[in-house]
Amino acid sequence: MKKLSLLLTALLASASLLHAQDSLTIRKIYDEALVNGKAYENLRYLCKNIGPRLSGSANAQKAVEWGKKLMESYGFDKVYLQEVMVPHWVRGAKETAFIIDGKTRIPVAIAALGMSVATPKEGITANVVEVRSLKELETLGESVIKGKIVFFNRAFDERFIETGRAYGAAGDQRFAGPAAAAKYGAVGVIVRSLTSADDDYPHTGATMATPGTKSIPAAAISTRAANKLSNMLRLRKLPLIKFYFKQSCELLPDVQSYNVIGELTGTENPNKFISVGGHLDSWDLAEGAHDDGTGVTQSAEVLRIFKATGYRPKNSIRAVFFMNEENGHKGGLKYAELAAQNKEEHIAAIETDEGGFTPRGFSFDGVSKDFLKNINDKYKTLLEPYEVDHLVAGGSGTDIEPLKEKLPGITLIGFRPDSQRYFDIHHTPNDVFENVNKRELQLGAAGIAAFIYLIDQHGL
Amino acid sequence: MKKLSLLLTALLASASLLHAQDSLTIRKIYDEALVNGKAYENLRYLCKNIGPRLSGSANAQKAVEWGKKLMESYGFDKVYLQEVMVPHWVRGAKETAFIIDGKTRIPVAIAALGMSVATPKEGITANVVEVRSLKELETLGESVIKGKIVFFNRAFDERFIETGRAYGAAGDQRFAGPAAAAKYGAVGVIVRSLTSADDDYPHTGATMATPGTKSIPAAAISTRAANKLSNMLRLRKLPLIKFYFKQSCELLPDVQSYNVIGELTGTENPNKFISVGGHLDSWDLAEGAHDDGTGVTQSAEVLRIFKATGYRPKNSIRAVFFMNEENGHKGGLKYAELAAQNKEEHIAAIETDEGGFTPRGFSFDGVSKDFLKNINDKYKTLLEPYEVDHLVAGGSGTDIEPLKEKLPGITLIGFRPDSQRYFDIHHTPNDVFENVNKRELQLGAAGIAAFIYLIDQHGL
Repeated sequence: MKKLSLLLTALLASASLLHAQDSLTIRKIYDEALVNGKAYENLRYLCKNIGPRLSGSANAQKAVEWGKKLMESYGFDKVYLQEVMVPHWVRGAKETAFIIDGKTRIPVAIAALGMSVATPKEGITANVVEVRSLKELETLGESVIKGKIVFFNRAFDERFIETGRAYGAAGDQRFAGPAAAAKYGAVGVIVRSLTSADDDYPHTGATMATPGTKSIPAAAISTRAANKLSNMLRLRKLPLIKFYFKQSCELLPDVQSYNVIGELTGTENPNKFISVGGHLDSWDLAEGAHDDGTGVTQSAEVLRIFKATGYRPKNSIRAVFFMNEENGHKGGLKYAELAAQNKEEHIAAIETDEGGFTPRGFSFDGVSKDFLKNINDKYKTLLEPYEVDHLVAGGSGTDIEPLKEKLPGITLIGFRPDSQRYFDIHHTPNDVFENVNKRELQLGAAGIAAFIYLIDQHGL
Repeated sequence: MKKLSLLLTALLASASLLHAQDSLTIRKIYDEALVNGKAYENLRYLCKNIGPRLSGSANAQKAVEWGKKLMESYGFDKVYLQEVMVPHWVRGAKETAFIIDGKTRIPVAIAALGMSVATPKEGITANVVEVRSLKELETLGESVIKGKIVFFNRAFDERFIETGRAYGAAGDQRFAGPAAAAKYGAVGVIVRSLTSADDDYPHTGATMATPGTKSIPAAAISTRAANKLSNMLRLRKLPLIKFYFKQSCELLPDVQSYNVIGELTGTENPNKFISVGGHLDSWDLAEGAHDDGTGVTQSAEVLRIFKATGYRPKNSIRAVFFMNEENGHKGGLKYAELAAQNKEEHIAAIETDEGGFTPRGFSFDGVSKDFLKNINDKYKTLLEPYEVDHLVAGGSGTDIEPLKEKLPGITLIGFRPDSQRYFDIHHTPNDVFENVNKRELQLGAAGIAAFIYLIDQHGL
């Protein structure tokens, strides 16, 4: 009994020493990120010297070269590219659109949805049918929809605390609305911007075609213009209100591009991986600062912090700059395919693609209640002083999602920054460097580094 | 034994029912705040139709009248004013300042510190002594300081996670630096702006005179100008660099002003109070949006939400718009004095004066570890879904601080929003309505209402 008690005391003491060592390492990680952080200046370069970088564009290629050079300059153990063919969609000339009320033409702000087809050169004019959901569209059917422009106008549900959920709940209108409307003979689609913001910016984003069916032109409309159009439709009889829009976007042949990967080789398990990634491509309308310049600069920063603080990971740690998240996910698919082909063992993958705002925690994809409890028991108190301790069930990220099928056993994790401002600027001309706060960005890099350190040391 | 077990089951069931009822009420509070919230539009009015409202100004009086009318329009049970005499400091003409390097004069941005005296009409020119702390000033002493302009240049310590702590750690330079420098014969003081931001805005704020001693002119200088001045001092020999500044601020006779108070009368304990407050006055340089328009509009919103959701509190709930937080604290002192004089029983007071950013939790002033553990055990799981669950030890707020001495037994609580962006705009011309996010503001009001509901129902 006495021996047992001595053993227990020794165990507790060593656990407490371990905890103290972890605390010290995490503090060092934060000090490096907050005092000597490089992510903010890297982001400035990516936004201001390269700028918008949609897949297939010359800027996307510049971003690939920049990413490779950056990680080489930090002296990571390996830096390399992964070839991947990506779609090459271009917006063409700036879109024009009007609400037509009898003889009055009211100009409104629209932006073609990514992967949409163009209108005819003279544009499209048609009556408008407003719907709030795909179900409502289905109920109206071909007799009502045929020859019309369908206007999807379901707003964000403001009751969600986390705005990503409101985006998820409204998103089918943009992803799947145009293809569904085409099925019923619509000639075009206008989608309310996916945002809580009351503003004049159309928020672009990809839409999906149904293979083998006719595609129709689809565009996002700003929330203010959507409210105006909806009010006019309610006040006037239908035939009086028409909508006109013109866009000249185009899908060009696929282009060869790359994922950019940097690696610190593990001292104990060089063939086991923990990765952190974001996506290098961005929409064409702005600088892709929060979406997802912050994610790629944080990912490189995590490895830089490990080197700068002298931390030698047991397992190999990768920073992955994925290509083509926005309109095709080809980079994520290729990464998973090659990981499986090379029989790599992956412990966990973290994605940072929800903006560079103040960190709140991490979400775990498809895990059990026991797993969550265990993770909280092990790590919550270590993360609480840094306010990055919300360890919850939830999604991870589009780029790492394909790993789930290819590498059973991997844990997929989403980095969760504060979500309130993200959809104000998401996919708009406002997604610029000036809207990123240096400390928030660096705190994110530190939080991810701290969590990867813990997984590397003590597992999940 | 069986009876005991039955009793236990019944108790647990009723505890769980209670928990379910609390969950439902909190959900209703958030729905009201996020869907029908009024704080954002009230803040727009305060910022755009009234604007800067330093104590003693005509705008401060307009703000008092606005606050009273607003709460009357909501039909609170009582709305009244508390008379309080406040200082009336005015900035006068815009300040001018130069770094003088031989024959070159480099203009730099400064702002007189609140309550500072003016320079002579022709301004002050003198050599500069740069120090990092009051201790360093003391070490140098009168032989070095006499006749000089003292330049306090200790930067924010970026290692703090919560920026309020960096402000606290650097703040003595502004609060006490000028009075200390005057003691050693300095002719003026320049203080590095209290911020992490690398910008061209001087951040104003109050400084304190030592009663019975000579006051010298004191001003804040932007961080970029501070870095420039410091670099020039390091590169050149001292006599070559001089500093010139001119300001014409003035302390006029005290003015009668008011705290504005709204109240919902408790159904069970009308003479027991839980209060929430912010301050109505602001600095003169901007609209006082985050400091502290967000605090007063949230305070009124808490009571409005209770009325709108039909919640009848057991105890009386007060919203207090304090006057003169920025340069005298007279409103807070008067409120505490009258509460003691009227023998009021106060359960808790919450202050919201750290900006209208996304809520993270509450801090409790001077409580024991047991108190904190108990509060976390009782309420943390209810607040977690709303991400306002950081219940920690810490400060409360300048306005409610005087209650501690006057009403022993009261619990003082600080509302804690995310702190990262606050000191970027604090006390500068950038503290405007446009820098407040609607959802963040409304989430704050909801979080405070939820927590007051819990205290009202189940105590602390």
